[in-house]
Amino acid sequence: MPQVLYLDDFAVGRKFVTGAVKLTLEGCTEFAAEYDPQPFHLDETAARQSVFGRLAASGWYTASLSMRLMVDSDIRPAGGLIGLGGEMKWPRPTYPGDTLHVECEVLDVRVSESKPDRGIVTMRNQTLNQRGEPVQVAVVKMLVPRRPAA
Amino acid sequence: MPQVLYLDDFAVGRKFVTGAVKLTLEGCTEFAAEYDPQPFHLDETAARQSVFGRLAASGWYTASLSMRLMVDSDIRPAGGLIGLGGEMKWPRPTYPGDTLHVECEVLDVRVSESKPDRGIVTMRNQTLNQRGEPVQVAVVKMLVPRRPAA
Repeated sequence: MPQVLYLDDFAVGRKFVTGAVKLTLEGCTEFAAEYDPQPFHLDETAARQSVFGRLAASGWYTASLSMRLMVDSDIRPAGGLIGLGGEMKWPRPTYPGDTLHVECEVLDVRVSESKPDRGIVTMRNQTLNQRGEPVQVAVVKMLVPRRPAA
Repeated sequence: MPQVLYLDDFAVGRKFVTGAVKLTLEGCTEFAAEYDPQPFHLDETAARQSVFGRLAASGWYTASLSMRLMVDSDIRPAGGLIGLGGEMKWPRPTYPGDTLHVECEVLDVRVSESKPDRGIVTMRNQTLNQRGEPVQVAVVKMLVPRRPAA
């Protein structure tokens, strides 16, 4: 089991790398059918006439899989991975057959002024495909408790 | 069928309202088991000891359901709802039993300088619960084609 991390364990510049997941056609289309049923996420022929050129995964599938990779990684803040929000970009699509992993870096750490037992960690979480190209870049703020006094 | 919309149909201040969806315990826990398997999204007892106080939906479930509501709405850009990225906040959790809908407002419209047949629409998409409280606020940029010359 990876160690539980407190605010004090996050230092600016610390990096984490997740495991990887390979996207299947079934996974992409099942997610899309439920949450993003647009033709270019569901049907190869329709996708050829879209800006994607071929059947592409929903950006929300990329986001959800990226979350799963992070939950399964060594990033284990005490209290859980709790995002407050952030900025997201999808610089390019993901396609069935792509293999994704996430590389994370701590950008900022600050103790809460109103609640000094916790703080905010800002991380950049880049989801990369098998060619190392970013498919999602998220800069997110997470709520992390401070280490309790011994 | 709602009308297909071109860039020229989006005016700053134009609003859209989606239909609504009621979150079930099964929906919340099935999504979490697949994409965000943290105790406070899966188990009521564990959730009581978390910052959420009770079993809460994954923020990515809220995001995915919000996308589905938008796909099913009158927001029908020609070429589809294609997000390039944006800013997201989850000001409060969602819980099983909550009923969510999305209220959207056009914040900015600009024609692409390099590709004058298309442009970028910036929208604020607020997902609200049954008490009208925002549970997700997304300010997103969408790629939208201009109306072809007649």
